Amino acid sequence: MAKIAILGATGYTALELLKILARHPEAEVTALTTRQENRPHISEIHPSLYGMFDLTCENLTPEEVSTRAEIVFCALPHTASMEAVPQLLDAGCRVIDLSADYRLTDPGVYEAWYGHVHTDPTRLRSAVYGLPEVYFNRIPGASLVANPGCYTSTSIIALAPLVSAGLIEPDGIIIDAKSGVSGAGRTPKLGTLFSECNESVSPYSIGNHRHTPEIEQVLSDLGGKSVEVAFNPHLMPMDRGILCSIYPRLRNSATIDELLNIYRRFYVDQPFVRIIDHMPATKHVAHTNFCDITVRFNRNQLVVFAAIDNLIKGASGVAVQNMNILLGLDQRTGLLN
Amino acid sequence: MAKIAILGATGYTALELLKILARHPEAEVTALTTRQENRPHISEIHPSLYGMFDLTCENLTPEEVSTRAEIVFCALPHTASMEAVPQLLDAGCRVIDLSADYRLTDPGVYEAWYGHVHTDPTRLRSAVYGLPEVYFNRIPGASLVANPGCYTSTSIIALAPLVSAGLIEPDGIIIDAKSGVSGAGRTPKLGTLFSECNESVSPYSIGNHRHTPEIEQVLSDLGGKSVEVAFNPHLMPMDRGILCSIYPRLRNSATIDELLNIYRRFYVDQPFVRIIDHMPATKHVAHTNFCDITVRFNRNQLVVFAAIDNLIKGASGVAVQNMNILLGLDQRTGLLN
Amino acid sequence: MAKIAILGATGYTALELLKILARHPEAEVTALTTRQENRPHISEIHPSLYGMFDLTCENLTPEEVSTRAEIVFCALPHTASMEAVPQLLDAGCRVIDLSADYRLTDPGVYEAWYGHVHTDPTRLRSAVYGLPEVYFNRIPGASLVANPGCYTSTSIIALAPLVSAGLIEPDGIIIDAKSGVSGAGRTPKLGTLFSECNESVSPYSIGNHRHTPEIEQVLSDLGGKSVEVAFNPHLMPMDRGILCSIYPRLRNSATIDELLNIYRRFYVDQPFVRIIDHMPATKHVAHTNFCDITVRFNRNQLVVFAAIDNLIKGASGVAVQNMNILLGLDQRTGLLN
Amino acid sequence: MAKIAILGATGYTALELLKILARHPEAEVTALTTRQENRPHISEIHPSLYGMFDLTCENLTPEEVSTRAEIVFCALPHTASMEAVPQLLDAGCRVIDLSADYRLTDPGVYEAWYGHVHTDPTRLRSAVYGLPEVYFNRIPGASLVANPGCYTSTSIIALAPLVSAGLIEPDGIIIDAKSGVSGAGRTPKLGTLFSECNESVSPYSIGNHRHTPEIEQVLSDLGGKSVEVAFNPHLMPMDRGILCSIYPRLRNSATIDELLNIYRRFYVDQPFVRIIDHMPATKHVAHTNFCDITVRFNRNQLVVFAAIDNLIKGASGVAVQNMNILLGLDQRTGLLN
Repeated sequence: MAKIAILGATGYTALELLKILARHPEAEVTALTTRQENRPHISEIHPSLYGMFDLTCENLTPEEVSTRAEIVFCALPHTASMEAVPQLLDAGCRVIDLSADYRLTDPGVYEAWYGHVHTDPTRLRSAVYGLPEVYFNRIPGASLVANPGCYTSTSIIALAPLVSAGLIEPDGIIIDAKSGVSGAGRTPKLGTLFSECNESVSPYSIGNHRHTPEIEQVLSDLGGKSVEVAFNPHLMPMDRGILCSIYPRLRNSATIDELLNIYRRFYVDQPFVRIIDHMPATKHVAHTNFCDITVRFNRNQLVVFAAIDNLIKGASGVAVQNMNILLGLDQRTGLLN
Repeated sequence: MAKIAILGATGYTALELLKILARHPEAEVTALTTRQENRPHISEIHPSLYGMFDLTCENLTPEEVSTRAEIVFCALPHTASMEAVPQLLDAGCRVIDLSADYRLTDPGVYEAWYGHVHTDPTRLRSAVYGLPEVYFNRIPGASLVANPGCYTSTSIIALAPLVSAGLIEPDGIIIDAKSGVSGAGRTPKLGTLFSECNESVSPYSIGNHRHTPEIEQVLSDLGGKSVEVAFNPHLMPMDRGILCSIYPRLRNSATIDELLNIYRRFYVDQPFVRIIDHMPATKHVAHTNFCDITVRFNRNQLVVFAAIDNLIKGASGVAVQNMNILLGLDQRTGLLN
Repeated sequence: MAKIAILGATGYTALELLKILARHPEAEVTALTTRQENRPHISEIHPSLYGMFDLTCENLTPEEVSTRAEIVFCALPHTASMEAVPQLLDAGCRVIDLSADYRLTDPGVYEAWYGHVHTDPTRLRSAVYGLPEVYFNRIPGASLVANPGCYTSTSIIALAPLVSAGLIEPDGIIIDAKSGVSGAGRTPKLGTLFSECNESVSPYSIGNHRHTPEIEQVLSDLGGKSVEVAFNPHLMPMDRGILCSIYPRLRNSATIDELLNIYRRFYVDQPFVRIIDHMPATKHVAHTNFCDITVRFNRNQLVVFAAIDNLIKGASGVAVQNMNILLGLDQRTGLLN
Repeated sequence: MAKIAILGATGYTALELLKILARHPEAEVTALTTRQENRPHISEIHPSLYGMFDLTCENLTPEEVSTRAEIVFCALPHTASMEAVPQLLDAGCRVIDLSADYRLTDPGVYEAWYGHVHTDPTRLRSAVYGLPEVYFNRIPGASLVANPGCYTSTSIIALAPLVSAGLIEPDGIIIDAKSGVSGAGRTPKLGTLFSECNESVSPYSIGNHRHTPEIEQVLSDLGGKSVEVAFNPHLMPMDRGILCSIYPRLRNSATIDELLNIYRRFYVDQPFVRIIDHMPATKHVAHTNFCDITVRFNRNQLVVFAAIDNLIKGASGVAVQNMNILLGLDQRTGLLN
């Protein structure tokens, strides 16, 4: 049984991590942290966990955490992560960081998009980007895994087979992304109130959403040349789920069957990617670690559709998938069987 | 007071028509029809109208309707409309047809997309496409107004200023459209059950949605050359609202301010088009006849966002707007003041 | 045209007031206030109002407001109202207060339930409780109208005919109330985030909801003896609407028809109360000022069902209804025709 | 590995059964049935199961089913169940029937509430009511388990400790129940369309809901005297979840702590009942087999609140719980660990 800690236990990704870990046969949660000083029981923070964990949320230092856990999920806000992670690594923990702090390899890009100087540029470069569907082989030996963003995972998994094979133009890729509200986190804000989001669909962060450089970094790496996307997120009136409708330009003609086969071959060993013939729907992947993908032509325009659960495959599910790989377990452990 | 009939009173568009007409100072509803033989009171069909109309839904012939009304809203399914409309016109009524039967000027295009031979091709050519924002001058003298589709209105209003000025390439226009469920009508179907749609986003009818030729017909007319769109509708978990996110290719560079000014000038006389600086949201136009539009650049990609209420501006509101024009009233009567 | 001001223009009740007043033929909004100092345009606060009002929200004193308006809607939080209202009244305005500050006639009861000493007990006693369905005659000459709470209106309208006629036991009346989330206001709080409320139903404030003494005060007045209710509110995953399912004990046997007739007679002159035979649904009254009521027996237990839109009949609609009465207009002006 | 069949695989309860069984370590699904003749793959019926089961839905006779499975979940409509179950039992299968056909011990009561003569009255009497929280000891040796209704389970679990101890009056128990829409099944009907249910709360089947006699039968058995409830169901705009707010009359005074302790002792061995201090919410039990319960006083009125997921604890979860008991497994297998 691997001993597991979660830093920042009050948000939705921590809640989903705990729900998954409650069923996991090889993991035991031994520490939860919060900045609150009153040591709330975890079921006071997340009433759905009542009776499932006998753990309080403590204001622990990274050093204290390291004495209790070998693997640490860091579910802190960005900038807070890069303060805690170095101490955790120095103390010998392996870290899966769910923040954005270690996802971008270039500290200049981080600063440009997040508005902060990166204080740990060395480890930034050595962190492994934890998307097993494309970087599986890099993960087993990693000490620091940067868990990908939710929009990022969906977009990359949807485009990786085409980009890797050089089948599409590397620029002008339009991503029209639709997400449920849980992606915006649990901190009360006007924009995520029920009475503001419900019965409404709206675009936001057009041209400046922080998942953009992350998508481009990985796709550029896979394609061997600079990839540029126009990423357009929209808020949907639902709890969870992301659908990306992606409009790339094919370089040569191909049929739907040829394209689906390229996808099937690319993901032949990936248990969580389902290449489907029917239309995806976020409900079909809700509460699972699956990513459903299909392609269509609309007139001459290729369209790739990909759907995930933003809290599972987009955050906590892939984090456990990464944990499984770090522990040498089957990727599916606790997620699919 | 104009005497008004509604053919096909059981659906959502009829319900919205009745709610608007209940407040309209110059219209009196005098007949409602249904194929049901039991003459249900309108408030049995639509309980929200209880106490507002003392009308039963009758199985009337077009001739019978024509003796009671001068203007007829035809809210029948397609193919049923083109059976009723000729008789209504022959009997002297003016007709606003909410079905698709008189929207496409070419009967061959109608047959190709709807799978039926058009049985009234002569009137098909003389019908006026009832989108006042682009064809205002054609409507006042019309005897038959083809009320536009919901996605169609949104897409055309969003693109008309650019297409009319020749600012964008006429082909490869990507429309990523998101609609609430009421657009699918009130006939029980698996796909529109609450438990299927709720908490889900999914694409549908990719490449074969029947609003496609309608959008292209009007934009081609406005642009003076053949316009081609890749129209991609998505179902959203909400009652009402459409947001179109449109990705055209600009022919020459322009700034956002220049583009917004082009839109403002184009719609200077249109009380229901709001050119906004902030992001549109379907909630901001819900239960109104407004269409909110803005534009952005994402990298080099122009994006046009347009939002309407699919049941109002997308169906019953624009139908009353057309009625106002036929009656020589201010367009806004009963809709905005 | 009556000149109208709204104090506290940023919340949902102010938004709904403005939507109603935009259509009202006898009212002109001349001032809006906020504590924000940056003078935001009203459409920056409420984007749905874009283009409808050319008004900024100003940090005005009550005296300044009084120079611009004859009727003032006070949509401030409780305790803030009882600071502003005396000054408005002294300056000659007539005030419709949407807060709870002037609803309870006994300052001791106010202090017990709101935790604050009432600083304006004199006016507390002279304020008129603005529920036209039961106190119509008191309102025309009032200078200060205390606009009722949303749960309160629903409960009182549902019970007034029975209590007034002495048909039910005055104690042990169980009210199981279900409300949409907008009733909780527009201030960001964890409990009203979309991701907390959506897909969830839960009870709250059992035994201590502040609408309890308000319901009891009015029903006791109508019944001529002390009435006691067990009021149990529940939060529903929807924007707007209240359904109260009320379980009183009949003192003598009666049939459903007899009871419905008692209701119909009681409300014969009230245009917004609809006594129905079918089951009410909040959707049937959404965006209207109606209150739909029916009664049933379940075994021997009488059940009264009543539905309203909490933002309209439960707040802003009844406020305009009160304004109409103050101005000597038909109650329905701007609300129903 | 126990071999499992599901009769009637197209509905929501079958879908949830399959999701649970996919994770279950001791069960293998070997047959699925439908009346459709085209042998659809299960993932065509339920796209969320894509890749998880390699099974088609076949139009099998009970005899054919019995050669493939030792335990059969019967998810057929009522009356269809009592045709299939006798044949399954005769062929040696053990049956967990999710319909209502074997829940009521008295065939006359069945006929009165369901409008059909019961055609298998002998087995009706020998079937075991499959609510482990009250009848655990009867289940292990059963050949036919009648799986309880969703409202029924919630109501019985909420009241069993009070009724068993004789703490409340046996009549006049008011149950105000709120359910998500999935409880109404997957057959397309006007009343369960998204556009009808969304943004709406409404009561239905007041006085004639078929779960009433089921609740009374079990509570009467537990209390040793006839129990009578006024059961009032309401439809909520959400997928899943039931909250029952129950208003019984205490026979003697008691404190909340005393009552909570009675509940805790009653359910000390039941892993799926959580006696909580905070307010329950359907979201806290969604996608789990838990039933959360608390009690409060409102004035002098006792209120019991209980929440479940209607598809899990209210149907498919308790069905698997029953299967576990039949197989001699820990109740929690596949459900909680």
